[in-house]
Amino acid sequence: MSRKWLIKNGTFAVLETDRPVIQGYMLVEGDSITYIGEERPEGVEGAETFDGKGLLFLPGLINTHGHAAMSLLRGYGDDMVLQTWLQEKMWPMEAKYTAADVYAGTALSVLEMLKGGTTTFLDMYDHMDEVAKVVEESGIRAVLMRGAIGLCSPEEQDQKLKEAIAFAQNWQGKAEGRITTMMSPHSPYTCPPAFIEKFVQAAHDLGLPMHTHMSETRTEVEQNVNDYGVRPVEHLRKLGMFSRPTLLAHAVHLTDEEIEVLASHGVTISHNPGSNLKLASGVARVPELLKKGVVVSLGTDGPASNNNLDMLEEIRLAALIHKGVSGDPTAVPALEALKMGTEYGAKSVFLPNTGKLAAGMKADFIALNTEQAHFLPRTDFISHTVYSAGPKDVEHVWVNGKQVIKHGACLTLDEERIRHDAQAAFEGLLAR
Amino acid sequence: MSRKWLIKNGTFAVLETDRPVIQGYMLVEGDSITYIGEERPEGVEGAETFDGKGLLFLPGLINTHGHAAMSLLRGYGDDMVLQTWLQEKMWPMEAKYTAADVYAGTALSVLEMLKGGTTTFLDMYDHMDEVAKVVEESGIRAVLMRGAIGLCSPEEQDQKLKEAIAFAQNWQGKAEGRITTMMSPHSPYTCPPAFIEKFVQAAHDLGLPMHTHMSETRTEVEQNVNDYGVRPVEHLRKLGMFSRPTLLAHAVHLTDEEIEVLASHGVTISHNPGSNLKLASGVARVPELLKKGVVVSLGTDGPASNNNLDMLEEIRLAALIHKGVSGDPTAVPALEALKMGTEYGAKSVFLPNTGKLAAGMKADFIALNTEQAHFLPRTDFISHTVYSAGPKDVEHVWVNGKQVIKHGACLTLDEERIRHDAQAAFEGLLAR
Repeated sequence: MSRKWLIKNGTFAVLETDRPVIQGYMLVEGDSITYIGEERPEGVEGAETFDGKGLLFLPGLINTHGHAAMSLLRGYGDDMVLQTWLQEKMWPMEAKYTAADVYAGTALSVLEMLKGGTTTFLDMYDHMDEVAKVVEESGIRAVLMRGAIGLCSPEEQDQKLKEAIAFAQNWQGKAEGRITTMMSPHSPYTCPPAFIEKFVQAAHDLGLPMHTHMSETRTEVEQNVNDYGVRPVEHLRKLGMFSRPTLLAHAVHLTDEEIEVLASHGVTISHNPGSNLKLASGVARVPELLKKGVVVSLGTDGPASNNNLDMLEEIRLAALIHKGVSGDPTAVPALEALKMGTEYGAKSVFLPNTGKLAAGMKADFIALNTEQAHFLPRTDFISHTVYSAGPKDVEHVWVNGKQVIKHGACLTLDEERIRHDAQAAFEGLLAR
Repeated sequence: MSRKWLIKNGTFAVLETDRPVIQGYMLVEGDSITYIGEERPEGVEGAETFDGKGLLFLPGLINTHGHAAMSLLRGYGDDMVLQTWLQEKMWPMEAKYTAADVYAGTALSVLEMLKGGTTTFLDMYDHMDEVAKVVEESGIRAVLMRGAIGLCSPEEQDQKLKEAIAFAQNWQGKAEGRITTMMSPHSPYTCPPAFIEKFVQAAHDLGLPMHTHMSETRTEVEQNVNDYGVRPVEHLRKLGMFSRPTLLAHAVHLTDEEIEVLASHGVTISHNPGSNLKLASGVARVPELLKKGVVVSLGTDGPASNNNLDMLEEIRLAALIHKGVSGDPTAVPALEALKMGTEYGAKSVFLPNTGKLAAGMKADFIALNTEQAHFLPRTDFISHTVYSAGPKDVEHVWVNGKQVIKHGACLTLDEERIRHDAQAAFEGLLAR
C-alpha cells in the first residue's frame, strides 16, 4: 500500500457505547488513521483503495502480560500444582535458556500472536535484546522490559538492575517507535524491598512506567503478610511503586480496600483469565475493579501456562467467567470485554495513541472474515467477535500502517523456518 | 476413497491413559475402523493409502446437547437476565419459526459443527423432520428428538407426545444408521409430572433412552422443591425416568446425595460450560461427578446462548474452569476433558460404537493440522489439542467412513447457499 490509502465498504468496530459499529470509510496516512466515518472523506482522489466488503475491522488486540519465549515449554508440563510445575518443569529448563532460545521462542510466539490479531504485546523476560530483534523484524508493536528476580547475591542484583536500565534506555522508541520500555522487578515475593525500590528509582530517573506480578495466588498474599506485615498492594505502595504509572499482572486476590488504593493511584491491571484458570490461581474480581474505575486489560501470560496466545480467547473468557462465577449475566458485557482487549489494553501499557479506530490513532488494526457460518446472522458484530470468533478468522493485520498478515499469512516472518527452529531449540534444551 | 483405505504416517489420539497417542497406521473398511496400530497391518496390498503426515487424528467430537435451529438467533440477545432473554427475545421469535426456518438454522449449525470437527450432535427441538433432513444430506451423525414443553392444554400435550413418538419411530436407524432417536420432555419445570410419565412409558414401549434439561439454574431447583416437595433428581426418579437410560443436560446444581443417585442409576450428564457461564447459571460439579463414576460429556447448548458450536472450546472450558473455581490444578486434566468431548460423549448418547479410535468402532474421526505455531514444540499432542487447538485447525472430517470436510471445506453442503438462506430466514423472522 502507498502512504495514503482508503478502506471502503468496511464495517468498523469503533466501540462507542451508543454506536459500537459503523459502516463506511477509513483513511490511513503513513503510520496513522486520519479519518473514519460513514461518509467518503474529501481530498482522497489519489489514494489507493482497499475493498473492505465482508470484513469487520477492529483495533489490533493488545496482550498486556506475557513471557513470549516460554512458548518453547508449551505442553512440557500441565495440570500440575504450581510449585511442582515451576520447580520441576519450568525453572530447570529456563535455567538452560540461551539468547538463541529466547529468539526462537519469541519468534514462534510473535508469529502466533500476529496471525491471531495481536498487534501489541508486553514482554517481561531475560535476554531481552533478542525479543527486541524479533519485534524489529516482525513489524509488531511491543512494550518490553527485563524482568528481574532479586533472590540472588547483591552483585547479581546490581547486574540485573544495570541490564534492565541499559535495555530500557537502548530500546525506548526504537523500531520506528514500535518499541517502548518499562522497569520490571518480577514480583514482591521474588524481590527484596530494597531491590524493588531501586527499580522504582530507576523508573523515576528514566521517566518510565513500572510492571510487576502481584497477588496471583492466595499463598503469595499470605506470605507477603507474614514477611512484611501488609498485603501486596500496601507493600508496593509503601515502596513507592505507585508514584510511577504502574501496570500489575494478575491481581487475582484483592480486598475492597486494595481495589480502592489501586483506583485512587490510577494503577492498571492485566487480567489473565486463561492462565489464572489453568494454574488454579482463582478468579480475579474484575467486575468490582471495573466498577471502581480501574483500567483492566487482558494478557495471555506465558504460553506454558495458557497454552496459547489467542487474545480472542482471553476476551471471551473475560466475558464468560465473571458471569458464571458471580451469577450475574450482565457482568462484563461483550463490548466491555472487547475494550479490555483493545482500548483498555492501550491505556494499561501507556500507549494512548493505540487501541481504538479513530482519527489520530496509530494504524494498528485487524480485519476479520465475517463471511462464515459462525458470524451469521448479522445481528451484532460485537457479540459475534467476543462469543464466536477465533484467531483464524483474522484475515489481515496492519501495525503502524504496514500490513503484516495478508489472507492469514505472515508477510514479515519466515513461518516454516521459525517452526523448525523452535522445535530444534526445544530439543536442544531437553538434550543439554 | 474406496471401501478399504489405509492411513499411514499418522499420529492417532487413542486416548489410553498409559499411551494417549500412537504413531502408525489406521485401516478403514466401509463405515468402520478395522485396525489401528504402530505396525502396518497385513492384507492391505490393494487398499488406497492416505498420507497422515503432519496430521493428528482424533475421534470425532460429540456434542451431547443443543438446539441447532437457534443459530438464527445468534447475537439477537446477549448479556441479559435469563428470564428477560427468554421472554422478550427468544420465545417471541421462536414462536414464529416455520419448518423452513428450522431447516435453515439447522443447516447453518451443522455446517459450523462439521467444519469444527463435530461428527455427532444431539438435537432437541421442534419441526424435527427438517433437522433429520439436514442430517441425511450433510453426512453428520445425530441423536434426535422432538423436545416437548407441557405447559399447554391436554389436547396439545397429546399432540406433542404423538409427534415425539412418530418422529422417534420414523427416523430411528435412518440415514445409513446415522440417526438414532430419544424421548425428550423439555424439563421438570416445563412439564407436568403426568406428561413426563407418558414420555417415560413411550420410551419403554419403543426401547429408547430419555433426555431432558435438569437443574440448570438455582431458581428452577427451588421451584421444584416448592411445587413437588423434592429436588429435581428425586422428582425425576419418582416419575420413573431413570428406569430408562437417561441423559440429563446441565445438572449444574446438585447435592452430594443427588450425585449418588445419578451414579447408582447410570444416568449420564451433558455438561455445557460455555452456556452455563454465559447465562450465569453457575459452574457444575464436574470433578465430583467424575469422581463418583458418572459419565460426563460436553454440549454447546443452542447457539443463541453460547454463541458458537465449537466443541474444542467446550473441551478447553471443561479443562480450565473447574481448576480455577476449585483451586485444584489437577481437576479435569487435559486427557479427561478430551474424553468428555469424545468417548464419554458416545457413552452419554448411547452410541457405544463411536467416540474412540479403535478397531470395531464406526469411522467417525477428524484430522488436525499440527504444522502450525500453536502446536509447537511437539511435547504433548493431547495438551495442545485441549489448550491450544481451535475449530479451524480441523483439516479433514470423516463420518461413517465418508469424508465430509476436506482441507476445511464441506463436501456435502452448499456453504454459500446455507449462509444466504440463514440470513434471509432471520430477516424473515424479524419482519413477520
